[in-house]
Amino acid sequence: MSQKIKIAVDAMGGDFAPVEIVKGVIQAVRETDAEFILVGDEKRIMEELKDNPLRSRIEIIHTSEFISMQDSPTSAVKKKKDASMAIAARLTREGKASAMISAGNTGALMEVALLYIGRIQGIKRPAISTLWPVKTGRAMLIDSGANADCRPEHLLQFAQMGSIYCEKVLEISKPRIGLLNIGEEPGKGNNLVVNTYEILRQSGLNFCGNIEMSDFIEGSVDVAVCDGFVGNISLKTGETVASFLTQILKDAIRKKFVAKIGALFLKSVFNELKKKLDPSEYGGAPFLGVDGICIKSHGKANAYAIKNAVKLAMKAYESQYINKIKDHIGGVQKSKN
Amino acid sequence: MSQKIKIAVDAMGGDFAPVEIVKGVIQAVRETDAEFILVGDEKRIMEELKDNPLRSRIEIIHTSEFISMQDSPTSAVKKKKDASMAIAARLTREGKASAMISAGNTGALMEVALLYIGRIQGIKRPAISTLWPVKTGRAMLIDSGANADCRPEHLLQFAQMGSIYCEKVLEISKPRIGLLNIGEEPGKGNNLVVNTYEILRQSGLNFCGNIEMSDFIEGSVDVAVCDGFVGNISLKTGETVASFLTQILKDAIRKKFVAKIGALFLKSVFNELKKKLDPSEYGGAPFLGVDGICIKSHGKANAYAIKNAVKLAMKAYESQYINKIKDHIGGVQKSKN
Repeated sequence: MSQKIKIAVDAMGGDFAPVEIVKGVIQAVRETDAEFILVGDEKRIMEELKDNPLRSRIEIIHTSEFISMQDSPTSAVKKKKDASMAIAARLTREGKASAMISAGNTGALMEVALLYIGRIQGIKRPAISTLWPVKTGRAMLIDSGANADCRPEHLLQFAQMGSIYCEKVLEISKPRIGLLNIGEEPGKGNNLVVNTYEILRQSGLNFCGNIEMSDFIEGSVDVAVCDGFVGNISLKTGETVASFLTQILKDAIRKKFVAKIGALFLKSVFNELKKKLDPSEYGGAPFLGVDGICIKSHGKANAYAIKNAVKLAMKAYESQYINKIKDHIGGVQKSKN
Repeated sequence: MSQKIKIAVDAMGGDFAPVEIVKGVIQAVRETDAEFILVGDEKRIMEELKDNPLRSRIEIIHTSEFISMQDSPTSAVKKKKDASMAIAARLTREGKASAMISAGNTGALMEVALLYIGRIQGIKRPAISTLWPVKTGRAMLIDSGANADCRPEHLLQFAQMGSIYCEKVLEISKPRIGLLNIGEEPGKGNNLVVNTYEILRQSGLNFCGNIEMSDFIEGSVDVAVCDGFVGNISLKTGETVASFLTQILKDAIRKKFVAKIGALFLKSVFNELKKKLDPSEYGGAPFLGVDGICIKSHGKANAYAIKNAVKLAMKAYESQYINKIKDHIGGVQKSKN
């Protein structure tokens, strides 16, 4: 019934590329009816693919260039025009792929997406969305780092795009939208959020008002919006504190036990933690406002995460959320930029 | 040799007031030669003090008003002119106390400090400093929430005050100053930090450049500066993620063990965690830029934390860091705001 979807996957992006990326695509071939283009170093990709019988649904486009996690986004994107993620983006732009997936350098991927895929007309600032583990499941933070300085109309669009994405792709009805702030009362916060509050209140969205990070982690909203500077600092604070804490606890548990029992115990407890916090289950999150499906997977994405990113990309494609954004935002508001 | 110091303590501030506050002051009477004024509900204070023989060094000033953690700062400060923290601030202003300590509502305490103690001439924006547990010990984040919108000259003053405080009170020579950002390269970040970078570079401070939250937690600087919106969101993200994670792990450990062994094990492991993260050891951190010593203890401060806050207040008084700020900043820069 559904059309054959072709997905371009950046084989070279992420800490465990290309091994886990290729493995993930093989799993996706098994579990979906999509076709794939793996973009990257052919020799290294073939080391994983070998003579896998599922190979027929995987095309390889060779390139020797790729952008690493350490590369500075702007200069890397300028210099490496044939980087794997750049080729994947052009395939998406040209309609040779229905969607692209990368676990690579986030900043570079956003630049690549804007340069080669472009933004939706009427969207002033495409944004990075991230899915956070929260007490009730997952919730989205937009913008997580694309736009360091924002105006209220940008935050409004983040909220609108997040709402459409949650409704169409994550199947959440009437997504609850919050404005990330340092207090709950209207009037709290910096000029940006004070001026955004009223605009969101009148937006027709299911706006729940100001929220603090504690409300967000409680699961009180589906989408929290903020400027990309605040979002990125918050994201990195969360990741850093989580890994610091985990390390302290691992050390403490190790100290209390003789080696083998300690290791066993550690494994069982931290598996529980991993289950709750692991981003693999969700595969990734899209760059919203880009005029094509560009799913960013976590830098530590494993095969399972990539397989789930494929499923997410397929769902995103079928949901036509980009057309909905175009109708709803691009159509209504005439952009002055 | 040292003069008798008198410290005004808000007996009603914090989650465990007045019990833990009074207990902490009793401990401080034992371990220091300071004198104390406990401000709060006399009957409740006396329930703790009873006929303690150390009572002679503790004066009580009775008030029935106090500001709770849930009160909205601005209106509470306006309405409750005789709130315990307000009286403590006036005692400090009038020289009847050398310093004040409160574990109460942070926003209200800052308003009280500005209203009754006032700011140092030449300091444009007093700021909230917080001490974070980091891999190498502790590091300071300024501003943690007093000033939602800042200009570069404000961040410069946060850095200058933080540097002086670390040098004089925490005895760190040449304190390392970082600018909290979303990337390390100069030119990264929002307009505020881009414009602050060069000012800090030329400030004569030991400026280490842009830092990300991961660098901060690694212990790469002694002081990180940011606007109060970013600082507060980051602080609350850190606290919320830490408590979320701890809860998940506690649940996991409970599940793996039969009740009693689990509880024992839990206690021993989480004591280790507590030791690393517990703010009690440090007592608190000052509001910088206020023209008097106003130490904010954590809302969950126990007796031990209050005792340490007293020692910190004494050290702060003896170090004369406020005079140093006056000489160094108030004197050099003629304020326009």
